[in-house]
Amino acid sequence: MTGRFHKMHGLGNDFVIVDAREQEMELSAAKATAIADRHSGIGCDQLIILRPSDIADFRMQIFNADGSEVEACGNASRCVAKLIGEETRIETKGGVITGHATADGAIVDMGTPRFDWQAIPLAYAMDVLNMPVGWEDLQNPAAVNVGNPHLIFFVEDSAVVELDRLGPMIEVDPLFPEKVNVNVAHIADGVIHLRVWERGVGLTQACGTGACATAVAAIKRGLVTSPVRVDLPGGSLTISWTAGESIQMQGPTTYVFSGEADWSQFG
Amino acid sequence: MTGRFHKMHGLGNDFVIVDAREQEMELSAAKATAIADRHSGIGCDQLIILRPSDIADFRMQIFNADGSEVEACGNASRCVAKLIGEETRIETKGGVITGHATADGAIVDMGTPRFDWQAIPLAYAMDVLNMPVGWEDLQNPAAVNVGNPHLIFFVEDSAVVELDRLGPMIEVDPLFPEKVNVNVAHIADGVIHLRVWERGVGLTQACGTGACATAVAAIKRGLVTSPVRVDLPGGSLTISWTAGESIQMQGPTTYVFSGEADWSQFG
Repeated sequence: MTGRFHKMHGLGNDFVIVDAREQEMELSAAKATAIADRHSGIGCDQLIILRPSDIADFRMQIFNADGSEVEACGNASRCVAKLIGEETRIETKGGVITGHATADGAIVDMGTPRFDWQAIPLAYAMDVLNMPVGWEDLQNPAAVNVGNPHLIFFVEDSAVVELDRLGPMIEVDPLFPEKVNVNVAHIADGVIHLRVWERGVGLTQACGTGACATAVAAIKRGLVTSPVRVDLPGGSLTISWTAGESIQMQGPTTYVFSGEADWSQFG
Repeated sequence: MTGRFHKMHGLGNDFVIVDAREQEMELSAAKATAIADRHSGIGCDQLIILRPSDIADFRMQIFNADGSEVEACGNASRCVAKLIGEETRIETKGGVITGHATADGAIVDMGTPRFDWQAIPLAYAMDVLNMPVGWEDLQNPAAVNVGNPHLIFFVEDSAVVELDRLGPMIEVDPLFPEKVNVNVAHIADGVIHLRVWERGVGLTQACGTGACATAVAAIKRGLVTSPVRVDLPGGSLTISWTAGESIQMQGPTTYVFSGEADWSQFG
């Protein structure tokens, strides 16, 4: 059962992409973990499987290295949009998104953000744009759901926040029944400087949905205007959003290599 | 400049192997590092380049992820021997070795071990099989050069040694002008249980030359007889050695995938 795959990355967030519309691809959590293993497998942050869809051009499944399936991944959506190359509608667990390739990457429509507390979800009602809660120096965050739940703190200097210590603590706070991604950002010369603690992953070089959620929260609070550049450790994204519309995320993608593997070796 | 490569591992020690006898492959330290990067490159512990040789069937260059070229790597030699598939003579910076494929891996001839203090090398003369030196609880090691320098401590229980703390300290001791790989081993039921701190790398799942050096030291001290099984965190190797002869190392290899990449992207 030999099959082909693509290896791509968006801002250093790397993916093994298998087009299972062309080949059989049975998958278990253990198999996804074996494929994602960086020493004995192919190695990736997330494994992406493209399958037929009834409501879009194809369906994209996203598996973390621990085998869990996740709703949305902005960097993966850009890579897949670039790979497909034309205007394309992608079904994800987080909803249908559209995307198309640009010269050096892709633009993807990340859908409309949600601000109602049940949709974040939070454990109880509050103003999600100015939450009366805090953890040590991190106070009064905003919460936005962009296919997955994000909490955003605007701080003086995002570079000095102890996100590796505070992120895992906040992620599992009972206020967030489905846990939460933790964003810390500051704004300088109209550019958002962002670091993200990803739920179930940890500190990452770049989080596309975090960039979207943070840009939306910053626009809502009147801190920046659309379109806004978001600088992450792994590189820059440009986010466009108008209230009531869907979020457009533009950024670079890199095709690293194509490969061929015997899938049966991974269990 | 698109070219093909192989991805293999031996006991979890993983390699990108490029046969540069078939394709042009200019290489710099920066390019080796870019290829070895696990997020934006192909990802590997070591990059292996096969080139023409005047004295053997081919020459094997071994680059660490930091771009430095190293003399010998037992796991890489087995993978290359398995890939080539027939009796083959491989030129390395550590000398010419011979190898041939077995059903599930390969046997490689690792050359003759050297025991003179200048060859280890040590900074000054002493009995290398029972060195009158020590670091905390690690005392009276043996030193063997098997293409690269190894220091071996026989302890009560290799699993409990704080090798992540002691390894980097011993590695750079002025006694070792070219630094040293640090092995801690204990023997139970005739099997060597080994953990290795690799010079310039750190704790690894499996070190082929460390298994050879430790088996030779244990045979020399009369602790085991040849052939001897060596259990490492990543799996088992079988080492055969008779005084005056070369070391034979047998163990499994895994072919993970083949790939095709545009080498120019890596600089």
